Amino acid sequence: MQEVLPILVFQTDFTYKEGAIASMYGVVRSVNRNVEIITATHELPQYDIWSASYRLHQYVEFWPKGTVFVSVVDPGVGTERKACVALTEDGYYIVTPDNGSLTHVLRHNGIKEVRQIDETINRLPSTRGTSVFHGRDLFGYCAAKLASGKISYEEVGPAYDVKDIVTMDVLEGRVSHKKAEGIIEIDDPNFGNLWTNIPTEELLNNGFAYGEDVHILLKRGEEIIFDRDVRFDKTFGNVAKGEPILYNNELMNASLALSQGSFLKTYDAGFGPDYTITITGKED
Amino acid sequence: MQEVLPILVFQTDFTYKEGAIASMYGVVRSVNRNVEIITATHELPQYDIWSASYRLHQYVEFWPKGTVFVSVVDPGVGTERKACVALTEDGYYIVTPDNGSLTHVLRHNGIKEVRQIDETINRLPSTRGTSVFHGRDLFGYCAAKLASGKISYEEVGPAYDVKDIVTMDVLEGRVSHKKAEGIIEIDDPNFGNLWTNIPTEELLNNGFAYGEDVHILLKRGEEIIFDRDVRFDKTFGNVAKGEPILYNNELMNASLALSQGSFLKTYDAGFGPDYTITITGKED
Amino acid sequence: MQEVLPILVFQTDFTYKEGAIASMYGVVRSVNRNVEIITATHELPQYDIWSASYRLHQYVEFWPKGTVFVSVVDPGVGTERKACVALTEDGYYIVTPDNGSLTHVLRHNGIKEVRQIDETINRLPSTRGTSVFHGRDLFGYCAAKLASGKISYEEVGPAYDVKDIVTMDVLEGRVSHKKAEGIIEIDDPNFGNLWTNIPTEELLNNGFAYGEDVHILLKRGEEIIFDRDVRFDKTFGNVAKGEPILYNNELMNASLALSQGSFLKTYDAGFGPDYTITITGKED
Repeated sequence: MQEVLPILVFQTDFTYKEGAIASMYGVVRSVNRNVEIITATHELPQYDIWSASYRLHQYVEFWPKGTVFVSVVDPGVGTERKACVALTEDGYYIVTPDNGSLTHVLRHNGIKEVRQIDETINRLPSTRGTSVFHGRDLFGYCAAKLASGKISYEEVGPAYDVKDIVTMDVLEGRVSHKKAEGIIEIDDPNFGNLWTNIPTEELLNNGFAYGEDVHILLKRGEEIIFDRDVRFDKTFGNVAKGEPILYNNELMNASLALSQGSFLKTYDAGFGPDYTITITGKED
Repeated sequence: MQEVLPILVFQTDFTYKEGAIASMYGVVRSVNRNVEIITATHELPQYDIWSASYRLHQYVEFWPKGTVFVSVVDPGVGTERKACVALTEDGYYIVTPDNGSLTHVLRHNGIKEVRQIDETINRLPSTRGTSVFHGRDLFGYCAAKLASGKISYEEVGPAYDVKDIVTMDVLEGRVSHKKAEGIIEIDDPNFGNLWTNIPTEELLNNGFAYGEDVHILLKRGEEIIFDRDVRFDKTFGNVAKGEPILYNNELMNASLALSQGSFLKTYDAGFGPDYTITITGKED
Repeated sequence: MQEVLPILVFQTDFTYKEGAIASMYGVVRSVNRNVEIITATHELPQYDIWSASYRLHQYVEFWPKGTVFVSVVDPGVGTERKACVALTEDGYYIVTPDNGSLTHVLRHNGIKEVRQIDETINRLPSTRGTSVFHGRDLFGYCAAKLASGKISYEEVGPAYDVKDIVTMDVLEGRVSHKKAEGIIEIDDPNFGNLWTNIPTEELLNNGFAYGEDVHILLKRGEEIIFDRDVRFDKTFGNVAKGEPILYNNELMNASLALSQGSFLKTYDAGFGPDYTITITGKED
C-alpha cells in the first residue's frame, strides 16, 4: 500500500504574470512525482509580511495535520534573515523566511520547534550560491524534500530557540460591558470587508446582541473615517444593499461590511495598528 | 483496485486576494485525501449570478459524467435562499445556492432532481450556526462528502420540486430568412468578444454564408451602439487587425469580435437582455 | 504497478475571467482521469508570442523529462499557421501553434523533431471543422492523448523540417573588457525588474565585480531613459529601499531592479529589441 504523503500548500506574492510559479512547481515535481501541490494564493500583497502571516493563520487549521505550508513573501531575500521550517504545536509544518511571517501562527497555533534550513544540503544543487529566487531554489526545494520524506524534519537543519522567531506586534482587542476596542487586523480585499481583532462571542457576552444597532467609531490615527450606528446582525441579507453591517466573520471576529458593496473602498480604509475601532451602544 | 472518485470542480467570485480558497480546499482535503480538486475559476464577476449560471453551461458538458461542480456566487448568503445539489439529466452534480445559478444548466442540460442541503448534517460541524462563509462550511464541505462517497446523493437532504428552482429570464434568439434577432447573452471579458444567443447554424440555414458581409445593429435599450456591415467569417485571420468580425464561437453561437482587439471595450458594450442585436443582409 | 504518466503543464493568455480553462481541462479529464494537470500561467500578456516563448525557456528545464507543455498564445488561430508538437533535444514535448512560440526553446534547449498535429485524428471529434477554440479542441485534446499514451509521438501527425519552425529574431548580448551591450530581453512584470540577455558570469569574467558600482545606459530606440551609476550586487538587501541595483537573476543574466520598487514602472520601460542596454565602468 502506498504511503500517503503530506500535502504541499503554497502562498506567495509572485502572481502568475511570469514563469516563477511554473519553475517552482517544476522543482517540486523533479524532487517527487506524488506529493500534492495546492495553490493557496500567489496574489498576496507585494512585500506584505503581515498579510502572509495573517493568511496562514486564516487557513492552516482547516488542513489535515502534517500538511506542509510554503509561504514566500520575502523582501529581505539575500540578507541575513533566516530561512526556516517551523513545526506548530498542532502538527503543521511551515516553510518560510523568518521575517515576521510566523507571527500569527505562533500566537494562535503555537510553535513547538523551529529549524534553520541548511543551504549546503537543502538548496537546489544547480543554484547554490548563485540565485535570488529562494522560492524555487530553497523554500520550494526543501519543502518538497520534507513532504516527500527525502529528509526528516531534523535533517532540515539546526534547531534554534522558538523565542528567537521574528514577530510583529499584534494588539489584542479589549471588551468590557457595552464597550469594545480593537484594530482592523486585516481586510477582505475582494468583498471590501474589514476584520477586527474583537471576538464576536465577547461582544455577545458583554451586552451586545444580534439584531440591534451598535455605534462604530473607526479612526486612522487621529482621523475619524466612520462614526455612526450600524446594524449588528448575523446575515448580510438582513440589511439593505449598500448599508453597513457589523457581522461575525469566518474566523469568529466582529467585522464591518457594506451589503453587496465595499466598506474598504467606500471609506478609503485599510488595516493594521493605525486603524482603531471602538464599538459602543446605539447613539442616535 | 482503488475506486475512481468523481472530480470536484469549483467556480466562485472569491478571487485569490485572501485566504478563502485555501480554507475551502483545506476542508475538502480534511474530508478526503483523494478526491481531485479542480479550479474552474475564482474570478467570476462579483455577485453576478448570471455569469455563474452561464459559465456552468459553458463547460459542464466537457467533463466526465458524475463530476461534482461547486458554484458559489451568493449575494444572498444567510437569507432564506436554499442551498442545494442538483443532478442534471446528463449525470452531473451541481452544488450551489439556488439563486438563479442553475438557470442555463436547467435549460440546456435539464435537471432530473434537486435536493436541499441538510445543514444539520452536511455542514462543517465546528461552524454550525456561526459563520457566513458557506463556500467553506457548507458547499465545499457537502460537495467533498458527496464526491468522496461519505454520503449518497439521497443523503444530501430532502428533494424538492425541480419546478421550484429559482431561474432568471432567458430570451431566445429568433432567426428567419436573412434576419436574426437576439441578445448579447454573455461576453468573453478577456478577449473582449460578445456572444449572442443566435446559433450560427441557423444563420447558415437562413440565407447567410461565411465569407460575406452582414449588417449588424447593436443596441443598449434604445441607444444604438454599433450599426454597420461586418464580415461573417470562420476565422479571425481573414480580417485585418482591429476590424470587426461575426464568427462562430466555441458554443456554436454567432459572436462579435475585433480581430486582436476588444469589441467590448471599443464600443463600451455589455451583456444581458438590454443588449439586443439584429443581423440582416449587407447594406452599404 | 501503475505507470507514471507524463505531466501536462499549461500556459495561455486566456485568464480565469470566463469558462475557457474549465472547458479545456474538462476535455483533458474526459480523455484521461490520471494525467496530472498543472497551471503554469493563464496570465500571459495577450497575443504576446514573445512572452510565451520566453516563459517556456524560463521554466521547462525545471520539470521532469517527458513533461508535456501546452502553450496557447495564438493570435493567428484559424489561419494557415501550423499546430505542432515539438520534441526538444533534452526530452520535453511542447504542444503549441508554430507561430514563434518555440523561438527560445529552439535556441536554448534545441529541438530534435517537430510534428504537425493531424486535425482529422487529434481534434476533439464533436468540434471538427467548427470552432475557433483550439486550446480546448486541438492543443488540449491532442496533448491529453499524447500524455496519456493514447497516441504515440509519431501518431501526432507528419514530421516536418525543424528548420521550418517559425522563429523571431533574438539578439545576443556582447561582452568585452569593462563593456557589455545587450537588450532588455523580458521583464518581471510583478516585481518590475528588467532582465537583460547579458550573462552575469561574462560580466564577472570581464572586469566587473560584485559590490562595485557600474554605469548603466538604457535606451528605448534613441531615447535615453536611464543613465547613471548603479550598484552591482548579489542581494537586494545591500541597497537601500527604492535604490537601483544590477543583480544576477534566476536565469543567471544581469538584471535591473529597484529594491522593493518597480524599475519597470518608475522608468516607464519595457522589453524587446528596442530596449538596449550598455554597461560600463563607474562614471561619477
